[in-house]
Amino acid sequence: MSTVRPKVYRYRTSVRWEGERKGTLSCTDKVDIKFATPPEFQGHPGLWSPEDLYVAAANTCFLSTFITFAQRLGVRFLAYESGSEGVLTTSEGKFKFTEITLTPRVTVADEGDVEKARQALAQAHEHCLVANSMGNRVIVQGEVVSR
Amino acid sequence: MSTVRPKVYRYRTSVRWEGERKGTLSCTDKVDIKFATPPEFQGHPGLWSPEDLYVAAANTCFLSTFITFAQRLGVRFLAYESGSEGVLTTSEGKFKFTEITLTPRVTVADEGDVEKARQALAQAHEHCLVANSMGNRVIVQGEVVSR
Repeated sequence: MSTVRPKVYRYRTSVRWEGERKGTLSCTDKVDIKFATPPEFQGHPGLWSPEDLYVAAANTCFLSTFITFAQRLGVRFLAYESGSEGVLTTSEGKFKFTEITLTPRVTVADEGDVEKARQALAQAHEHCLVANSMGNRVIVQGEVVSR
Repeated sequence: MSTVRPKVYRYRTSVRWEGERKGTLSCTDKVDIKFATPPEFQGHPGLWSPEDLYVAAANTCFLSTFITFAQRLGVRFLAYESGSEGVLTTSEGKFKFTEITLTPRVTVADEGDVEKARQALAQAHEHCLVANSMGNRVIVQGEVVSR
C-alpha cells in the first residue's frame, strides 16, 4: 500500500497602509507595487487595485499554464497575448466577481501547429491553478493564428 | 413594487509573453508589472508570480475594506500592516489554493478605539469582495494595538 504525499507550496505577501486609500504591496526579492482602492469605491486612479490584481492573477496564470502544456505538446509558438475582463456585481448586499473572461491569442509558426496550440489552450483551461481556486467562472475565448 | 438594479463594475488587464516563462502585465494608466512562473514550476525567481498576485489580491482588498469600515465606525487608526500566506496543494492531480491566512495588525491612537477597530476587522472579513470571490477559505488573524 502506497501513500502519495500531496505537494504543498506557500506564497507570502505583505501590505502597508500609507494614508488615504493607498498602500504598498511587497513580496520578498520582488519590486514593490503601489496600490489603491479604485475610484469607484472612493479611492484613486492610476494605481493597481485589489480588483485589478485578482483579474491579473487569472490572466498571468493562464499564460503560465499555457506555456507548460504548449511545451509538453511541442507547439512552436511565436507570440501569446491575452486580455481579461472580470465582472464584479452585487448580490445580497455584497460585491463579488461572477465571471472572468480571458481572450488569449496565440501565434504559431506553422499551420501544422494550430491544432496542438488549441489543445494546449484546452489543457491550460483545465489546469490553471488560479482559475481553479476561484469561486467565479473563468471563461476562455481563445484564438490561434499561424503566421 | 420596486426593482433594485445591481451595480456592475468591470476590470481589465492584459498580458504579453516575452520568452522563457516570463511576461508583462498591463492595466490602462498603471505601471507595467513584469511577471514569471515561479521557480518551483520551472520558472524564474525575483519576479511577481500569478500565485503571488492571487494572494496579494486578498491582502490588498482586505486592507481596502478595513479602511472603509474603520472610517464608517469612526476608528482613529495610525497604522495598518498585514502579512498573508496562501497554501497551494494538489488534489486529484490538480493544484489549487486551499486557504489564505491574513494577519492584519492595526495600531489605534487610543485605547478607546480598540473595540471599534476589532469590529471594523470583523466587518471587513464579511465584506472583502476578493475573499468572497475566492473558492478557498480566507482566515483572518487580526490584532489591534493602541499606542
